[in-house]
Amino acid sequence: MFAFNYFTPTRVVFGRDTEQKVAELIKTFGGTKVLIHYGGGSVVRSGLLKRVTDTLDAAGIAYVTLGGAVPNPRLSLVYQGIELCKKEGVDFLLAVGGGSAIDSAKAIGYGVANGGDVWDFYDYKRKAAGCLPLGVILTLSATGSEMSDSSVITKEEGQIKRGYSSDFGRAKFAIMNPELTMTLPDYQTACGCADIMMHTMERYFTNGGNMEITDAIAEGLLRTVMTNAEILVKDPKNYDARAEVMWAGSLSHNGLTGCGSDGGDWMTHKLEHELGGLYDVAHGAGLTAIWGSWARYVYKNCLPRFRRFAVNVMGVEPTGSDEAVALKGIEAMEAFYRRINMPTNLRELGVKPTEDELVTMAHKCAVGVGGAKGSARLLKEADMLAIYRASL
Amino acid sequence: MFAFNYFTPTRVVFGRDTEQKVAELIKTFGGTKVLIHYGGGSVVRSGLLKRVTDTLDAAGIAYVTLGGAVPNPRLSLVYQGIELCKKEGVDFLLAVGGGSAIDSAKAIGYGVANGGDVWDFYDYKRKAAGCLPLGVILTLSATGSEMSDSSVITKEEGQIKRGYSSDFGRAKFAIMNPELTMTLPDYQTACGCADIMMHTMERYFTNGGNMEITDAIAEGLLRTVMTNAEILVKDPKNYDARAEVMWAGSLSHNGLTGCGSDGGDWMTHKLEHELGGLYDVAHGAGLTAIWGSWARYVYKNCLPRFRRFAVNVMGVEPTGSDEAVALKGIEAMEAFYRRINMPTNLRELGVKPTEDELVTMAHKCAVGVGGAKGSARLLKEADMLAIYRASL
Repeated sequence: MFAFNYFTPTRVVFGRDTEQKVAELIKTFGGTKVLIHYGGGSVVRSGLLKRVTDTLDAAGIAYVTLGGAVPNPRLSLVYQGIELCKKEGVDFLLAVGGGSAIDSAKAIGYGVANGGDVWDFYDYKRKAAGCLPLGVILTLSATGSEMSDSSVITKEEGQIKRGYSSDFGRAKFAIMNPELTMTLPDYQTACGCADIMMHTMERYFTNGGNMEITDAIAEGLLRTVMTNAEILVKDPKNYDARAEVMWAGSLSHNGLTGCGSDGGDWMTHKLEHELGGLYDVAHGAGLTAIWGSWARYVYKNCLPRFRRFAVNVMGVEPTGSDEAVALKGIEAMEAFYRRINMPTNLRELGVKPTEDELVTMAHKCAVGVGGAKGSARLLKEADMLAIYRASL
Repeated sequence: MFAFNYFTPTRVVFGRDTEQKVAELIKTFGGTKVLIHYGGGSVVRSGLLKRVTDTLDAAGIAYVTLGGAVPNPRLSLVYQGIELCKKEGVDFLLAVGGGSAIDSAKAIGYGVANGGDVWDFYDYKRKAAGCLPLGVILTLSATGSEMSDSSVITKEEGQIKRGYSSDFGRAKFAIMNPELTMTLPDYQTACGCADIMMHTMERYFTNGGNMEITDAIAEGLLRTVMTNAEILVKDPKNYDARAEVMWAGSLSHNGLTGCGSDGGDWMTHKLEHELGGLYDVAHGAGLTAIWGSWARYVYKNCLPRFRRFAVNVMGVEPTGSDEAVALKGIEAMEAFYRRINMPTNLRELGVKPTEDELVTMAHKCAVGVGGAKGSARLLKEADMLAIYRASL
């Protein structure tokens, strides 16, 4: 059992119609000039953006808007947002959307509050000393960015996807209305569920001593997301299922499911980041396409956890050798991915990298993690390449 | 499933020797003159207080000290603390101890920040508009006050015990070193475990629709505390068991185990508060002495939850009628209380109220809750009296 810090200051306002409280919340945190940052046209088409601006107008809060945040959000838009904030004297950021809009807003916040080139933070060259205050109206349950300290940005030049984590970037508030996620395409809903589960699984598969209560929370969270992800395949407008997934998404990545562990493994994420940088695939789908190959490559080095996962999460009967039970757990997870129409390899993901591209991804991944990384099993460049090859 | 707010801004610093970070944390939150508030002599005898003041001395942070917070902390000491803070220009409160010192410090903080009579808040006459910033070094896992919004104070005149909850009272940081709880008397350790469990059980036994993930967390938390409470009966210095209980204590009462519920039942607490006001018994022991009688009085009105509790928490086989399974769950919980040497009725608690006293307690309890309260079953004064009688 390891020491830990736990810091989740984000004020969560959860339930139907909660977006109506946005102006009141912005005022609570001192915002007077807001940049509303969002992604594609769905928040415009759904009328959500208008409802938000109407609320701000009624409350006398000034704002400017910036749309265009895309999955794997781009550094160029972040630069644009920083300039806009400086020009307009913005003192509060409001992200309306999912992880792309939130991560992009966090990067804008770091850029405005710290000056210099914001990519420095994502390039591990310096640490942020602050961030513009940020609020969130969540429309997609996936990245957990609404309560997490992390953000991921892609630099177009060289297709480099990097994450930066800082407590300064944690949102002041997160408005979570499960109804706002009901119009998502089924594929995005499933990708979100996969991403949510992986945030806990990355923390769960370690050789560090997890805490019992943390394990119980992690296992309960995974079971809950699986149950409700399957409900949403058939009944996408099920409020309760949307709500379970939405709250699980925040708890999965705010630190709770890692308290007392060694920090977790995180190699599935790192391997997927290179894939996402190269192909612009949906993050959740990239994760499930890699996970099975990663799990089979590492499970013997982390057998107690994989066995426990099989029994407590996947419902595998605890009979036979530990290895057999663990493998059944991996197979059961892949079967679940298929039931929610997620890929279990790169072919199903729809990408076909050449051997040269695999080598390049493995190299970039190894450089990105400083040579080697992983708690379930420490992976070096050759291991990464082997997993990429196995995932074809 | 109900809407909810979730707000847990407390920065948790968990692990061995974490009390060494206290000066750094106080500085982070702007404290320049600190009131160190503690309870009995144990923090003096153990050397903890000296380690804390040495750390503040080394960091050049000024402080005054005020000991004497007792279980069921007294209003008179709160008044004394408020005067001391005003006289000395205190701008930060540091509670070193368990719930008594923390709750007393919260009340001092409300008094200093709001002026007027601090009892007004506990008497439901007005709401706090602020609180002096508060940090905690936790030495007893029980009340969860280190992350909760609540505090309970007893007014000596009339022996009135009342709680007040406000987000302003949430601690800025909580230092949690499980080793600091190792020297507790076994009875206090067990009382703490009982209190921790009850904070989740009060939220769990409702007729409102709980969320699945909240239920999974609640059930996992209860199982974890039970397992480790029994370990601590035999092995009080077991670090991992102390750590599980300590972290469970914070999660049990910071709001997490109630997200999506109707707010919970809370009648066991209310019934115990009157007992605590009259007899000065340990809170946790008072709770277990009441719980069985409460549970048997209400379970038929909340059968699905009591059945689920029996199966998922107490490990009862789900065979036979729902009522039979539910009753077995209640019996199993009482058996657990006995295994950790906690009372299951007032006789075992060591108190023998007269019929007049029972009537008075029921009346005060009913007045305290505004006539009637309870989600598992709505209880009025006559119900409260019946439960008190059954608990003799």
